[in-house]
Amino acid sequence: MLKGGYMGRILRINLTTGEIKTEELKEKMARDYIGGAGFGIKILADEVPGNIDPLSEDNKLIFAPGPLSGTSAPCSSRMAVVTKSPLTGAVGMSTSGGHLPVELKYAGYDVLIIEGKSDIPVYILIKDDNVSIKKADKIWGMNTFDTQSFLKHHLRDQNIRVACIGPAGENLSKMACIINERRAFGRKGVGAVMGSKNLKAIAVRGSKGVEIADIEKFKLARSSMLKAMKESPVLYPHFSKTGTPMIVDAISALGMFPSENYRSTGERDYTESIGSKVSTELSIASEPCYGCPVGCSQLKLARKNSNYPGALSDPEYETYYSFGGQTGVANIDSIIAADNLCDKLGLDTMSTGVTIGFAMELFENGLLTEEQLGGFKLNFGNHEAMYDIITEIAYRRKGAGELLCDGTKVLSEKVGNGSEKYAMHVKGLEFPAYDPRGAKAHGLNYATSYTGADHNRGYAFQEIFAIPVPKAYDRFEIEGKGKLTKWNQDVRLATTDCPTMCAFLLDMALPGVALQNTADMVNSVSGLNLTANEVEKVGERVNNLARLYNISAGFSRKDDTFPERIMTEPIKEGPSKGQYISKEDLDKMLDEYYEARSWTKDGVPTLEKLKELDIGDITI
Amino acid sequence: MLKGGYMGRILRINLTTGEIKTEELKEKMARDYIGGAGFGIKILADEVPGNIDPLSEDNKLIFAPGPLSGTSAPCSSRMAVVTKSPLTGAVGMSTSGGHLPVELKYAGYDVLIIEGKSDIPVYILIKDDNVSIKKADKIWGMNTFDTQSFLKHHLRDQNIRVACIGPAGENLSKMACIINERRAFGRKGVGAVMGSKNLKAIAVRGSKGVEIADIEKFKLARSSMLKAMKESPVLYPHFSKTGTPMIVDAISALGMFPSENYRSTGERDYTESIGSKVSTELSIASEPCYGCPVGCSQLKLARKNSNYPGALSDPEYETYYSFGGQTGVANIDSIIAADNLCDKLGLDTMSTGVTIGFAMELFENGLLTEEQLGGFKLNFGNHEAMYDIITEIAYRRKGAGELLCDGTKVLSEKVGNGSEKYAMHVKGLEFPAYDPRGAKAHGLNYATSYTGADHNRGYAFQEIFAIPVPKAYDRFEIEGKGKLTKWNQDVRLATTDCPTMCAFLLDMALPGVALQNTADMVNSVSGLNLTANEVEKVGERVNNLARLYNISAGFSRKDDTFPERIMTEPIKEGPSKGQYISKEDLDKMLDEYYEARSWTKDGVPTLEKLKELDIGDITI
Repeated sequence: MLKGGYMGRILRINLTTGEIKTEELKEKMARDYIGGAGFGIKILADEVPGNIDPLSEDNKLIFAPGPLSGTSAPCSSRMAVVTKSPLTGAVGMSTSGGHLPVELKYAGYDVLIIEGKSDIPVYILIKDDNVSIKKADKIWGMNTFDTQSFLKHHLRDQNIRVACIGPAGENLSKMACIINERRAFGRKGVGAVMGSKNLKAIAVRGSKGVEIADIEKFKLARSSMLKAMKESPVLYPHFSKTGTPMIVDAISALGMFPSENYRSTGERDYTESIGSKVSTELSIASEPCYGCPVGCSQLKLARKNSNYPGALSDPEYETYYSFGGQTGVANIDSIIAADNLCDKLGLDTMSTGVTIGFAMELFENGLLTEEQLGGFKLNFGNHEAMYDIITEIAYRRKGAGELLCDGTKVLSEKVGNGSEKYAMHVKGLEFPAYDPRGAKAHGLNYATSYTGADHNRGYAFQEIFAIPVPKAYDRFEIEGKGKLTKWNQDVRLATTDCPTMCAFLLDMALPGVALQNTADMVNSVSGLNLTANEVEKVGERVNNLARLYNISAGFSRKDDTFPERIMTEPIKEGPSKGQYISKEDLDKMLDEYYEARSWTKDGVPTLEKLKELDIGDITI
Repeated sequence: MLKGGYMGRILRINLTTGEIKTEELKEKMARDYIGGAGFGIKILADEVPGNIDPLSEDNKLIFAPGPLSGTSAPCSSRMAVVTKSPLTGAVGMSTSGGHLPVELKYAGYDVLIIEGKSDIPVYILIKDDNVSIKKADKIWGMNTFDTQSFLKHHLRDQNIRVACIGPAGENLSKMACIINERRAFGRKGVGAVMGSKNLKAIAVRGSKGVEIADIEKFKLARSSMLKAMKESPVLYPHFSKTGTPMIVDAISALGMFPSENYRSTGERDYTESIGSKVSTELSIASEPCYGCPVGCSQLKLARKNSNYPGALSDPEYETYYSFGGQTGVANIDSIIAADNLCDKLGLDTMSTGVTIGFAMELFENGLLTEEQLGGFKLNFGNHEAMYDIITEIAYRRKGAGELLCDGTKVLSEKVGNGSEKYAMHVKGLEFPAYDPRGAKAHGLNYATSYTGADHNRGYAFQEIFAIPVPKAYDRFEIEGKGKLTKWNQDVRLATTDCPTMCAFLLDMALPGVALQNTADMVNSVSGLNLTANEVEKVGERVNNLARLYNISAGFSRKDDTFPERIMTEPIKEGPSKGQYISKEDLDKMLDEYYEARSWTKDGVPTLEKLKELDIGDITI
């Protein structure tokens, strides 16, 4: 019997029938999947067939905070959304922070499942036990910021929290995200799924508390966590001040900051133009998630004498890459403006920037013409074209908009002519801001993550920040990276995406103690008695379940790969010069990875492993 | 002794010295000036010499709600701001509604006086008795919407209300306004005065109530007011649904809707393109001021297939004119987008649109070239140029921005070459949306209002809406319009700008009973015992005081005039065809007006009149 942490209820809303009901959250579910991404992927695997069209009414959107959300556990106001991704066709899992996760818990729910499709635009209003589906025809078409302030104003509650889509989601762009505050459930096109359901927004306000099973134990676990955070050489001294843009410096120093669609990584230094110094100068305030003592999110104001004076946004490191290095636009003001525009239109900044950068290379190679693009001269470094094309994409406008709006993979398929060699994605998900040629485990995670090229699903901090946990690794080395990647992926789910906690704790503060800390925190709030080993097993369980889902969606070993550029073109200059990942090296790493996972050579989980993990009656 | 309605306190903040103090509000002040504009103009006349530079630290900004603000008197959440206007050099008085006026009352103040100039950008935080001046260097440069949401977020109070300037005010554009919510203290460059003081924002939260001296009397007065409102044939049947844009139809039907800088009034019908039908179709919700049962402010969403999809704003009738007829842009989506952009940048939509329309005529006449304008092809009807130039203006950018940013009069002075003939302003204040050639008293008010061409200071509803109060008038007739204008101006101050109430009550619901109603309302809340006649005298007193101020600022009879176009070019087509106001007719009306006011032939108040009004020791 669950004693705290969990609200014990799943809220299920069917937009086809209008039915709204609550279901009990079972203790076994909590024990086996903890929460967040674990809950979402379990429900997706149970309820959504792998072969459906992600934009059909058969798909579901599953929102889930974790048992720690709404408690005073630091950095725990996080929430996962899980769906079948229209961008990849695989499991789509995305997390976001802010205040919304806490609000959903306080309203009394551990999970919100949205299924079916409304005939007309609607939004969902959740106020504790009062849940209703309301007409949204008047707000359909609004940008995400206006939608949030409009609903707060017209529901007469400035403290209501809203997740919503913008025009990009309405127009089913596969790069559409879901926005809450200035934060995104980004990537994987989760906003398009919401749009396909005619669901504009979810507004939530809760008044219930979250119970703590054992407050003394919780206090102890919490203070040990706070102590570890305090001791981190990075978290408060740097992260609180500069936020993720500090990573521009770190990754540039490794020669891994991608430039111009990865054709010239290491050749150009972006540190001065868009690195932590100038970034910090433009920061005006931090906007922390609920209860976060770190406050890495830094609001920045574009300079008066720039092309985008007054633009205000909180771009993360990944956006410095996607609208900076990837597009060759070494202009921080453009990045702030593009970030703000994407947030308003409900576009994922990573996929959008990467796709624009890819289109720039196609343009320079003559594979995309000014005419096809509707008049845009899309050279690398053209910040105006970059900025203007964002709106074209969100509205799926003829020309550049139609071509780019479904991301890099679809653009490459439309263009053909060998462009797939430098279409920077895995399984359809665009590359993150770390050139995998310079960090092999980080790369192997791109190749094998259940969501595609997703740094956050198995971040190799051992390679990126030289943190020797579980031991030290040479970032260029191939051997051992299969095992390491398994560990990184499992621990990430176990300690971050399920409980739910901020990823930066694992990377910056708790790497050596995260599993035990998660066990202590979850046990103390819930009355469960998980061991650190069992917590790790949750991560492995979810990774296996996600793999099974992806297999049922048609994925196999051949999809665990890179675009050809990564496997044939060495990095040209700098500290990672000469590095690449040959097909042979990839195969070596994959073999080791599959073996570490007890999967077959083809990358299929064995029945023994499934049995060991108690995954249950799975047919694939 | 004041018993209610008033908080009894004036808050005075000196930004040069940092001194913050409160002063007592005297009963005589309340009795003689009631509140709002009356208080503001009295303080301006007492404390700010007429010959100072409005953008120097000698100028003051005086905010004043009225005795009814914060009570349940309908439509009373209004506030005046008074300053010496940098646009006109005369009294600058502007009102705005929303929630801010109530908040200032609830914080305990009838008047807020801001004087001096801060060395660095600051904002003022008022929370009841806790008043502080805070650094605003981080938010200097932000747009007005971001400023409001930023302050609410970082002051951790979503219900705080904020008045602020945008980039236009920071850059001292004489067309800059002060924004609160989506509302403006518009016109007369009040935002530039705030910018000249390095004051970015005023954030207010109050927790005190407003006392009512005689609740039974108040209830009676209130219900008679509500009854009159209910009986209005316009207020609820139309105004609640369509808001002020319904006036496009009404004024077009009179052949008075200005087109293309007044060169072609009556020639083109804007009713279908931007009139009440399409306007109502685009309305998605009303956003009433605090406690308003009417809710005329209608939020509109630009259409998806327009050039400005997703643009959201609540343009008023005047903006349909300034960015519609005046610029020849018969495109409602452009108007919504331009309105939104002006609000964000803190630009007055009327002055901005009129100045752009004037520049369009200069461009078509060859008096402004594409080169001078920095590449803009500024033909009438070019909505893209119109929209883009707004940003140039707010940032005072080289070319179009520098030329247009200080309004029509300054632009005309820069261009010369006889352009003053069709520079549509009086005393520097741009024309409103009623061609005065078709309504002579309405026009005479433009010529004589203490603020310049300001429809709201003496709206001739007798001519515009054919309301026979105090009696019926032929709108084309000259005779009798001097007396009527005096009455309109005095009653407007007495029943609207001082108490403070919404102007639409006088125009739409209470014209015959406004003076008595104001007396009843003000007496019941405050314990004063003003007669209707004394209320009217307050209006006359304030108009005389404002006139004295303007004389001390250098104005005289010669400034009570029109641009030559109005006096020489008859309206070309439609129901007002052939109408103009000859110099002789203007002089006739002025003579009658001055006489009605007991002013000299030169338009100077006589000592007898000042004595009668007990204006006191005034030296001019």
